[in-house]
Amino acid sequence: MTGKKTIALIGGTGNEGPGLAARWAASGQYRVIIGSRQTGKAERVAAEINAKLGDNLVTGLVNEAAVEAGDIAVLTVPYSAHQATLAGLKEKLQGKILVDVTVPLAPPRVSQVKIPPGGSAGQEAQAILGPGVRVVSAFQNVGAAHLEDIDHPIDCDVLVCGDDKEAKAEAIALAEAAGTRGIDAGPLQNAVVAEGLTAVLIGINIRHKVKGAGIKITGI
Amino acid sequence: MTGKKTIALIGGTGNEGPGLAARWAASGQYRVIIGSRQTGKAERVAAEINAKLGDNLVTGLVNEAAVEAGDIAVLTVPYSAHQATLAGLKEKLQGKILVDVTVPLAPPRVSQVKIPPGGSAGQEAQAILGPGVRVVSAFQNVGAAHLEDIDHPIDCDVLVCGDDKEAKAEAIALAEAAGTRGIDAGPLQNAVVAEGLTAVLIGINIRHKVKGAGIKITGI
Repeated sequence: MTGKKTIALIGGTGNEGPGLAARWAASGQYRVIIGSRQTGKAERVAAEINAKLGDNLVTGLVNEAAVEAGDIAVLTVPYSAHQATLAGLKEKLQGKILVDVTVPLAPPRVSQVKIPPGGSAGQEAQAILGPGVRVVSAFQNVGAAHLEDIDHPIDCDVLVCGDDKEAKAEAIALAEAAGTRGIDAGPLQNAVVAEGLTAVLIGINIRHKVKGAGIKITGI
Repeated sequence: MTGKKTIALIGGTGNEGPGLAARWAASGQYRVIIGSRQTGKAERVAAEINAKLGDNLVTGLVNEAAVEAGDIAVLTVPYSAHQATLAGLKEKLQGKILVDVTVPLAPPRVSQVKIPPGGSAGQEAQAILGPGVRVVSAFQNVGAAHLEDIDHPIDCDVLVCGDDKEAKAEAIALAEAAGTRGIDAGPLQNAVVAEGLTAVLIGINIRHKVKGAGIKITGI
């Protein structure tokens, strides 16, 4: 065994999970576990990623076991499953870092910014999990199509919001390992901006007939 | 007289007003009026801009007279003066386009996103002014230092949010005339993102020891 940290992708079989998993595994810097509610689905998606990578780097586990084995948990579920998923994993997540990728989109109007009752999905995660979990909000603005094309760098920055410096540094390192640039965007309450930007970018995608509009911070 | 439209900068003697006024006047596409609560101050700032431009292009008037003479009003006041300024100019603004540049910062914590009671300053402006004024939210993310350096292009996009297409097109044209790129960022309710981004960028300025961090939309 190496000293590598293990990333557990909760709900990692969805849109963003497989691309992030492949990039982190390919970086050689992390062990990666795909989590799902169904073990079989997690194993199948992990096998697909390994086939793509040409190496046996990713494993699949049910979410609870994935979180238990992980040092850093990354949450990639639709907003409709956000609260229930976190409530179910609350005990297993204590003491860990949770990187929340969730965007509170409000279908069918997914290009209109909708602020959730707790201020942002990131703040809602922190409220559900309590102070024993260090929540960081990140990766909302990087399109799935870009993530999956693992041989290409991504022309999109990752805004990282959180109240714990060490946890933010871990998320910034994850952004770099995924081939993006991670930028400290302030406290967790600023997550509303990164989350809301996704709705703005979806609208820009529609109006410009493109798939992966993103953002870059200039002047730094 | 030409067919040029006239821009009235309400509170145009502050941080963003003079730079925007100089850029719009220098573009040759607009007549520009600096508005202020005090006529003398408006005239003084207009004279400073004209001296910088080497031409007599900008005039100074008290806010009410500026709005009356303008086709498009641009609001550049601190958030603390937002509500009172708009309430006082409500009648004069009827039938016009208002481009709201206001950012609801909450001093002293100006790098923390603070969402105002009405959802965003842009939505609050629309609520105060009523349906007879077409409110567009724009220019929140372009730093004053960049605006004032009028011979240089600005490496920052302008997110334009509004519920009226024609008014948004006018604001996008204003962005282009100022040497930036204007991007339709969706309905007025999306203004919360552009406004909140300013707090995020202030934090990035502080952490990176720079003055003018901005944003660019990629992939379009």
